[in-house]
Amino acid sequence: MPDLKYDVLGIGNAIVDVIARAGDDFLVRQKMNKGTMALIDEARAGAIYEAMGPAVEVSGGSAANTIVGVAGFGARAAFIGKVKDDELGQAFAHDIRAAGVAFDTPPAADGPSTGRCYVMVTPDGERTMNTFLGAAQDLHPADVDPDAIAAAAITYLEGYLWDPPHAKEAFRKAAKIAHEAGRKVALTLSDAFCVDRYRAEFVDLIRNRTVDLVFANESELKSLYETADFDTALAALRQQAALAVVTRSEKGCVVVSGNDTVAVPAAPIEKLVDATGAGDLFAAGFLTGLARGRDHQTAARLGALAAAEVIQHIGARPEVSLKELAAQNGLAL
Amino acid sequence: MPDLKYDVLGIGNAIVDVIARAGDDFLVRQKMNKGTMALIDEARAGAIYEAMGPAVEVSGGSAANTIVGVAGFGARAAFIGKVKDDELGQAFAHDIRAAGVAFDTPPAADGPSTGRCYVMVTPDGERTMNTFLGAAQDLHPADVDPDAIAAAAITYLEGYLWDPPHAKEAFRKAAKIAHEAGRKVALTLSDAFCVDRYRAEFVDLIRNRTVDLVFANESELKSLYETADFDTALAALRQQAALAVVTRSEKGCVVVSGNDTVAVPAAPIEKLVDATGAGDLFAAGFLTGLARGRDHQTAARLGALAAAEVIQHIGARPEVSLKELAAQNGLAL
Repeated sequence: MPDLKYDVLGIGNAIVDVIARAGDDFLVRQKMNKGTMALIDEARAGAIYEAMGPAVEVSGGSAANTIVGVAGFGARAAFIGKVKDDELGQAFAHDIRAAGVAFDTPPAADGPSTGRCYVMVTPDGERTMNTFLGAAQDLHPADVDPDAIAAAAITYLEGYLWDPPHAKEAFRKAAKIAHEAGRKVALTLSDAFCVDRYRAEFVDLIRNRTVDLVFANESELKSLYETADFDTALAALRQQAALAVVTRSEKGCVVVSGNDTVAVPAAPIEKLVDATGAGDLFAAGFLTGLARGRDHQTAARLGALAAAEVIQHIGARPEVSLKELAAQNGLAL
Repeated sequence: MPDLKYDVLGIGNAIVDVIARAGDDFLVRQKMNKGTMALIDEARAGAIYEAMGPAVEVSGGSAANTIVGVAGFGARAAFIGKVKDDELGQAFAHDIRAAGVAFDTPPAADGPSTGRCYVMVTPDGERTMNTFLGAAQDLHPADVDPDAIAAAAITYLEGYLWDPPHAKEAFRKAAKIAHEAGRKVALTLSDAFCVDRYRAEFVDLIRNRTVDLVFANESELKSLYETADFDTALAALRQQAALAVVTRSEKGCVVVSGNDTVAVPAAPIEKLVDATGAGDLFAAGFLTGLARGRDHQTAARLGALAAAEVIQHIGARPEVSLKELAAQNGLAL
């Protein structure tokens, strides 16, 4: 087994978030499904941008947010994802590297511009997303560095990778390398609509143990097993997955593995400002805990802490040191 | 006199802020003067960006922030400034228009990229700025639309316009048109180091009444008259300016015109998060009040309200409706 170089390596769509506040009426007029992510083409991206209010640009991307969180906990982190060599792509690369993450995927020299996600934050703090994948479309298996994967305790993949044409091949390649090196593979289901697009494939990945650990929120879980009943869906997941974590917003999370169940409450917050990144940062804490040999309960508490931090400000990247936050809460890593 | 179309029209450097948190040690290592703005070239911009932490991109520019604030109060606002037709330039144009500001300056098709300001926010909420002017360098007198100026009750100019080579000509052209149309001209001194670069010219603008209203903070005022004594400097300003407003951070502001003096306290805040834009938004409130025929005291209170809003979050553009904020404080416009 090669030396361990990273605690967690993530592969995902490299995206810059374009975040604006919006009223619920805006979502209705724009026919957006509140709280979900829709894929859009360039024309629709232009139309949404023109209609939306003044915005802030912040590096995002689901798995990228998670990996920045892992680095924020002081763990060793790496990311693979595709930007273009344009201003937003340079910003993405700067931000993830400045956060302490190894990021060596070469940017695309031509083709569509760096991917972006138009995020509408409604007064209740909920976020509704519209993603133009752009250069993220061009993530290929060749972008997966086998040495990096083999040197990472956990390789973390986002379900959104099923959207770009070749990224799922990159995903499968990475999972194979990781397992051959004796490492773990984790997957987030990403979004209920994403699950709807790729349900059968996701179930296969879980059942045939291409992934060892699955993250889902309630709506993704229900979508996966096409049921409105949480307990039914959880029972199905427990049977199929080696280890699974289901996040339930303010109700905390449930970790299931075999017959074991661990429930951990959400960390308290003062005010929900922007829910963007809640699931991503939960995953950051859980993965860091797991990679560092902590038990499921401790890992879930780390996840809850990170999620609580990120939803109390605009943007999906932490604004304080998660390492210090963990230490302050008696969870020093 | 042509019909009044705008309450306030601003001319300034069109800049996108690249904002990151930084420790005081970072400022020391980078030899930055805390709380001030330094002009940098492209090479230095690259070096600072590489050294700084993860950032957020938000449209900025001193006069542009002010004009967005004017629009936020529900007043009619326009802006003249130069961006390039690149991603950041498109973001600048989108954000200012989405805020309700008329912005018709054609973007530069070639030349340097859109100007940017690297803003380091230290834990005390103070901001230290490094500006690469970029495309803002190319603001020319031809960009000043005479009809727009003549149709604005107040034309507002930033002292920073003295930095790009041709912008001061644009400034003088605008002031002349405004006065010929019977309108008012306002100037902010922008920054103590900016005053140091152009002291004699700024004193001339004030003495010969090219500007009718001057905004300065304490350090700019002291720099203008090269004295460490506030009262001495204020006496000099009172003698030379028709109307002047001196902002004093948490000590509020002083409005002087002839022998009249009005002192207005700062509006209360819960926590200073990021001082960026405090002066800009104060000017927004004061200018709006003045353009709408309010007295100096009321105008200064509007300024204090807007400044208090903007320093309680990251970024120099208001996040709430200033119009509603004014109404809630008994200052409905």
